[in-house]
Amino acid sequence: MYKRKIYLEDKPRLEARDEILAASRLNPEKEYLFAADALGRVTAEPIFARVSMPHYHASAMDGIAVYAETTYNAHEQHPLHLKRGGQFCYVDTGNAIPSPFNAVIMIEHVQVIDEDTIEIIEPATPWQHIRPIGEDIVQEEMLFPQGHVLRPADLGVLLAAQQTVIPVVKKPVVTIIPTGNELVDAASELASGNIIEFNGTVFAGFVKEWGGEPKLRAIVKDEPDRIKEALLEAAETSDIIVINAGSSAGSKDYTVHIIAEIGEVFTHGVAARPGKPVILGKINEKMVVGVPGYPVSAYLALEWFVRPLVCKYLGIPVPERQKVTVKLGRRIVSSMGAEDFVRMNIGYVNGQFVANPLTRAAGVTMSYVRADGLLIVPPNMIGYEQGDTAEVELLRPLEEIEKAIVFSGSHDMTIDLLSSELKRVRNDLKIVSSHVGSMAGIMAIRKGEAHVAGIHLLDPSTKQYNISYVRKIVAGLDIVLYPFLKRKQGWILPKGNPLEIEAAADLVRTNANFVNRQKGAGTRILFDLLLEEAGLSEEDINGYDREMFSHLAVAAEVKGDTHGAGLGIYPAAMAMDLEFVPVADEEYDLLMTRSFYESESGRLLISMIQSARFKEQVEKIGGYQVVENAEPKLLAEEVTE
Amino acid sequence: MYKRKIYLEDKPRLEARDEILAASRLNPEKEYLFAADALGRVTAEPIFARVSMPHYHASAMDGIAVYAETTYNAHEQHPLHLKRGGQFCYVDTGNAIPSPFNAVIMIEHVQVIDEDTIEIIEPATPWQHIRPIGEDIVQEEMLFPQGHVLRPADLGVLLAAQQTVIPVVKKPVVTIIPTGNELVDAASELASGNIIEFNGTVFAGFVKEWGGEPKLRAIVKDEPDRIKEALLEAAETSDIIVINAGSSAGSKDYTVHIIAEIGEVFTHGVAARPGKPVILGKINEKMVVGVPGYPVSAYLALEWFVRPLVCKYLGIPVPERQKVTVKLGRRIVSSMGAEDFVRMNIGYVNGQFVANPLTRAAGVTMSYVRADGLLIVPPNMIGYEQGDTAEVELLRPLEEIEKAIVFSGSHDMTIDLLSSELKRVRNDLKIVSSHVGSMAGIMAIRKGEAHVAGIHLLDPSTKQYNISYVRKIVAGLDIVLYPFLKRKQGWILPKGNPLEIEAAADLVRTNANFVNRQKGAGTRILFDLLLEEAGLSEEDINGYDREMFSHLAVAAEVKGDTHGAGLGIYPAAMAMDLEFVPVADEEYDLLMTRSFYESESGRLLISMIQSARFKEQVEKIGGYQVVENAEPKLLAEEVTE
Repeated sequence: MYKRKIYLEDKPRLEARDEILAASRLNPEKEYLFAADALGRVTAEPIFARVSMPHYHASAMDGIAVYAETTYNAHEQHPLHLKRGGQFCYVDTGNAIPSPFNAVIMIEHVQVIDEDTIEIIEPATPWQHIRPIGEDIVQEEMLFPQGHVLRPADLGVLLAAQQTVIPVVKKPVVTIIPTGNELVDAASELASGNIIEFNGTVFAGFVKEWGGEPKLRAIVKDEPDRIKEALLEAAETSDIIVINAGSSAGSKDYTVHIIAEIGEVFTHGVAARPGKPVILGKINEKMVVGVPGYPVSAYLALEWFVRPLVCKYLGIPVPERQKVTVKLGRRIVSSMGAEDFVRMNIGYVNGQFVANPLTRAAGVTMSYVRADGLLIVPPNMIGYEQGDTAEVELLRPLEEIEKAIVFSGSHDMTIDLLSSELKRVRNDLKIVSSHVGSMAGIMAIRKGEAHVAGIHLLDPSTKQYNISYVRKIVAGLDIVLYPFLKRKQGWILPKGNPLEIEAAADLVRTNANFVNRQKGAGTRILFDLLLEEAGLSEEDINGYDREMFSHLAVAAEVKGDTHGAGLGIYPAAMAMDLEFVPVADEEYDLLMTRSFYESESGRLLISMIQSARFKEQVEKIGGYQVVENAEPKLLAEEVTE
Repeated sequence: MYKRKIYLEDKPRLEARDEILAASRLNPEKEYLFAADALGRVTAEPIFARVSMPHYHASAMDGIAVYAETTYNAHEQHPLHLKRGGQFCYVDTGNAIPSPFNAVIMIEHVQVIDEDTIEIIEPATPWQHIRPIGEDIVQEEMLFPQGHVLRPADLGVLLAAQQTVIPVVKKPVVTIIPTGNELVDAASELASGNIIEFNGTVFAGFVKEWGGEPKLRAIVKDEPDRIKEALLEAAETSDIIVINAGSSAGSKDYTVHIIAEIGEVFTHGVAARPGKPVILGKINEKMVVGVPGYPVSAYLALEWFVRPLVCKYLGIPVPERQKVTVKLGRRIVSSMGAEDFVRMNIGYVNGQFVANPLTRAAGVTMSYVRADGLLIVPPNMIGYEQGDTAEVELLRPLEEIEKAIVFSGSHDMTIDLLSSELKRVRNDLKIVSSHVGSMAGIMAIRKGEAHVAGIHLLDPSTKQYNISYVRKIVAGLDIVLYPFLKRKQGWILPKGNPLEIEAAADLVRTNANFVNRQKGAGTRILFDLLLEEAGLSEEDINGYDREMFSHLAVAAEVKGDTHGAGLGIYPAAMAMDLEFVPVADEEYDLLMTRSFYESESGRLLISMIQSARFKEQVEKIGGYQVVENAEPKLLAEEVTE
């Protein structure tokens, strides 16, 4: 029905944004709210005070009101008596000063003689201790211009000035249309090929945070008529329309053709990644943004184009993110001619911010959720070298990043547990971990990019874990190697072990679909040792090149495949309800810098590990033993020997 | 009934906070929410993935699924034909890969031969273009620890992992009890002595922003039994209680005695200003914070003590404010032994942040609303000298401060109008003005603390406005003096001019209550000239020392007093419905640095002033005339002559 259009534009992102902003005929409506209900809302008009505060001359103290001129003769040597009524009256803080009185004397400086008489020994100066009319707010003064976002204290000012009902900008209605035949609700029983629709909920959350009113529609099937109908309906009932997926240039990507047919398309494709295949257009003067299906692309596109539209409607500037300058732990390659939005982990180690890229796959939602910031590589750059400094936009508060314990090395699920326990005890601390494998973990310590690394590297010659690697790789550094866990490694196999795998040779015999770990992972080194001992080589193993980055990922792979096999830890097999055939008891140690080991966070971490509560939780998982009363295996002096 | 306790403690603020946090037995409850409704809520437990994402091996491309091993012979020279069904099947992005296929070839690399046959010229590698099970989320992995504040993208992850209903921490209920006989509702007809209750609404706003659930009670009279009843009821129904006012040590400050009677008092008075007279205690294990009545004291005390309690309940750290280093434009005096929280205006002028204190009166709400930041003078310091640098906690985003046009000098209501117009056209720009008078405005330009100053200084010798002052005070600086307005100055008098004031001599004749402007204000200089011309001196004028900082404030004062009189501009008299007797037509000019005049903001400001829309609005006020087609009166070269 619709022709396939192979190429997308490569329009500069900001040009595309300015175009749609200029083309938008957003027509902000006003609504009237009680001031008390207007928190976070945007004033639609300048707001002026209806009364002054104070609206009368008010006493600023508890005391007596007097006419200053009558007190001028008071002196310590010549106390002055004043008569109640004509010469003074009692006032409390906030009371009105009755005419013609024009000064207040604090009660502490007043001697009561009798019911109607007081004595003072000091004259009052006119207007002393009086809050004059309008000291705080003057009637008719402008309290707030239009376009002001109301904060808690602002509501107080509105009430004090008797602006109890105020005009605010209506929240722009943003209709969100998820499309796709493969989409199902999160509560559904999942079948192979079903994709849970969750982008819509994320979009709604963003729109809410930005000050709009999201309307999330039910999933629309990938049929041109249904899509057209949904768009036309949304154009009637909303200010901005977001349509999810179908924004690319494939055979089933109808959206751009439909918008062109019933409206106008300004842009199809921007020179920015991920998020390139975006559609910007309008239908009946309602702005339409078509965003890609992959979550990370979608969230970025939403921020690039929907947020400015929402802010324009509200009449407020788009808030900027806090930025921080970081040292790059790895090289970052980018293509010329397009911006690259790289999700980054940032750690604060040895007094500097060090950032490493997370996966750049647009489909990996967790890379956005786990990111501390975004590195935006401009279109005219091909990237950065390792060690370069660059500016990163923060996705979390800086203080959270500064306080995080940066954990590198081998993945183990007990680290998540440890992080959670730590957060329970000290809610401003957390562990941020990246799963890079044992070898990369040691390197991260060496390069000053992590506080702690979890390692389990078997030395084939000595059959000892970790020590020889640490001695070699971080020689000369002030480090501590702390024994953490003994854990069971073994074959992870489909339930019932249908291929009857007990040893490496069985993988070859059965041509099992092996799932390996990445280079540098302790489990990979163990596997290579098992192959060597069995006289086998990598070519003999079907799937040797299929690398996963965690034990759970290996187990998940095996789970999906009756001919699958992997090597990993006991709890990963248990979590996925798989068979486990033990192979080795390995030592999973923590390598850390001495300065971290001795820091407050380091000491807390160790005490947490040694706590009965944590040990109990870990051992309940199975296949683990926390090392009791551990003492460092290695300290700096030994390493430097 | 209750004894008067004269002295408050001077307990260090942080010590008092840590004490109440340690004593608090907050008992956070859990509630279960749909993930889609959990934005901004705090997880009550670690949350694990129930399914992997993808939960099947998914195609990452549109194309065909193949078994990689069958494609190894494909070559440009030897194209390979594959048969549909056994050797390949078509897949779209997101489709499941049917067993035993293990690779995807992009549709662009496939040549269709017939319905059931395709041709390829390149082999596929195993697992290419496949998103393996768990690529994004692995079943059983920890998605979030407890104590995690859920952001939009987090909701997506919860849904994707089929965690559709999740445990979050219930919002702590914070009951707010306003007390005071003088308090009335904002919608009331105001009588002298009535104070509008607005603190409660502000507190509720803060509590909401911090993640609690505020319950704002009706106003409670200042009677011990009523207060006791309200506290006991709140202790039954809430987690935290805030009682407003009565926290000091006066004869009617019952609160501390009541809390001591029915509960326990930990602290009464902290060494911090404003906000010193605070009460910290508990009733039936519910924490009670008694905060002072003056708004600024109250807001600070709330932040010091209630916010940490709310955060502790939620299990999250208290967020920190962004900080910036500023140069101090004025000396700041503080008392030893107590912290001082000084509200500051911050301007970004000539590439540096310059900060000046706002009024330190605890009762002036607008000083908190207008503040850009808080300077916290530690207890062991007696303050700062002018020109010192200091760190300030920001109350607004830094970018907003950076972009603000800092306006100094004489107050005029058209400046608010100009600010509002500017914000309408460019919502990221605004004018921040301080009302310091013409002379201080010129000084601010000289010291590099402002971009623009509004001045109207009459030189008694030349009868010319502004020029001679600018020549003298900013000689040598690169400035521009731009003609802005002609405006009518005159006597501001009660309606009907009952004292029949036409000239300065009439003030003396009638002994009118004169309301003066502060030293350095153009109106003050005009008044002094009028006195001189009439052969009078300041001693002759009743109220000469009663200084106000704006025309509107003068008018507000006159409004309250049938014997009042002031000097000021026509629109101030009109705004307050007062009599106006013209005295002079004065020239209100804008003095600015040349660099600002030539900047984007400066050019925008001038074009705004010259716009028909602005002129019309200004002239509608009355008493004003915008100078048409103005050219600078003075440019740097003339000044430096």
